[in-house]
Amino acid sequence: MLLNSPAVERLIEAFRRLPGVGKRTAERYALHLLSAPTEDAAALSEAVRRAREAIRKCSICRNLTESDPCAICSDARRDQGLVCVVEQPSGAMAIERGGTYRGVYHVLHGALNPLEGVGPDELEMDALFRRLKSGRVSEIIAATNATAEGEATALYLARQAQPGVKVTRIAHGVPMGGGLEYTDEGTLAHALDGRRQMS
Amino acid sequence: MLLNSPAVERLIEAFRRLPGVGKRTAERYALHLLSAPTEDAAALSEAVRRAREAIRKCSICRNLTESDPCAICSDARRDQGLVCVVEQPSGAMAIERGGTYRGVYHVLHGALNPLEGVGPDELEMDALFRRLKSGRVSEIIAATNATAEGEATALYLARQAQPGVKVTRIAHGVPMGGGLEYTDEGTLAHALDGRRQMS
Repeated sequence: MLLNSPAVERLIEAFRRLPGVGKRTAERYALHLLSAPTEDAAALSEAVRRAREAIRKCSICRNLTESDPCAICSDARRDQGLVCVVEQPSGAMAIERGGTYRGVYHVLHGALNPLEGVGPDELEMDALFRRLKSGRVSEIIAATNATAEGEATALYLARQAQPGVKVTRIAHGVPMGGGLEYTDEGTLAHALDGRRQMS
Repeated sequence: MLLNSPAVERLIEAFRRLPGVGKRTAERYALHLLSAPTEDAAALSEAVRRAREAIRKCSICRNLTESDPCAICSDARRDQGLVCVVEQPSGAMAIERGGTYRGVYHVLHGALNPLEGVGPDELEMDALFRRLKSGRVSEIIAATNATAEGEATALYLARQAQPGVKVTRIAHGVPMGGGLEYTDEGTLAHALDGRRQMS
């Protein structure tokens, strides 16, 4: 409809594949790029191509990186025996922003979801189990999301990890700064179950 | 910071130039593209490049178009003597969505803004005055936004239009300070109907 141009329709479709972008937003992005100086459009086109070429998966932790192994896997000051398993690179980044975690990561690039056809082979599980076999990993922290798929993936990790490797799950509970009255029942049940002794 | 990759930093910067996109959103877009299949990134890169190449400004109305003259300017059923002047292509699209306007458009690609160094020469004013000189235009509707810049631009049009060309202003059904692209079709139709003569 918009501009009657197949090229613009394809651009809008490409924008709509970005997370959280609907039709109106995609149209706004497209119109902006078409009205903006040619260099702006060329810059975006080039930046997408170059970034995709420059970035690969770390051969150890499968996180996205420009250098292989990634900066975290090659950091001798970090505990290479403690592996935090996350679904996506954004999860590892969120934990890094916290600034207190001193172990390393493993990025699965998804979670088990049989209904969507996502089994262990579709995730970076092989790479993880290879790391465990090396014998240098003492604990893996299942930091998958608190969703049905994330819980299933955590359970799978706990069952498949070889003996001698401790598997832990990140705590679920009331978020810092959150009031009880705004917390859903599931989270509160987890928070009660996971209570710790204070004195 | 994110991924320590200059290529990714450039991609995030390019996304941030899109309207309404902040740092977090740009990061989400970048991470999505880097995790998605290579074809998705290639598709976006190509779509941006191709759309920018395919789209030009209509030689008559300066709206964005793939064919020149654009579909509206070449439509014999439309009143070529009634020209609706808008700031941006999105404004013309918003009015087209209303479905009642039967005239044509002229897209200025901006509004007068002396503080930002935008004078008549930075807008598609010359192309408009050339159309008026042809003698086939009987009325121009100043449908610039209801902002200080839009009002100034409308006033400029009223003063500069040659005698014999009626200049009207869309009615203030458009909320003050609001852009055409955020206005619903009904309000826009009223605004067109209630236009008042300026000179």
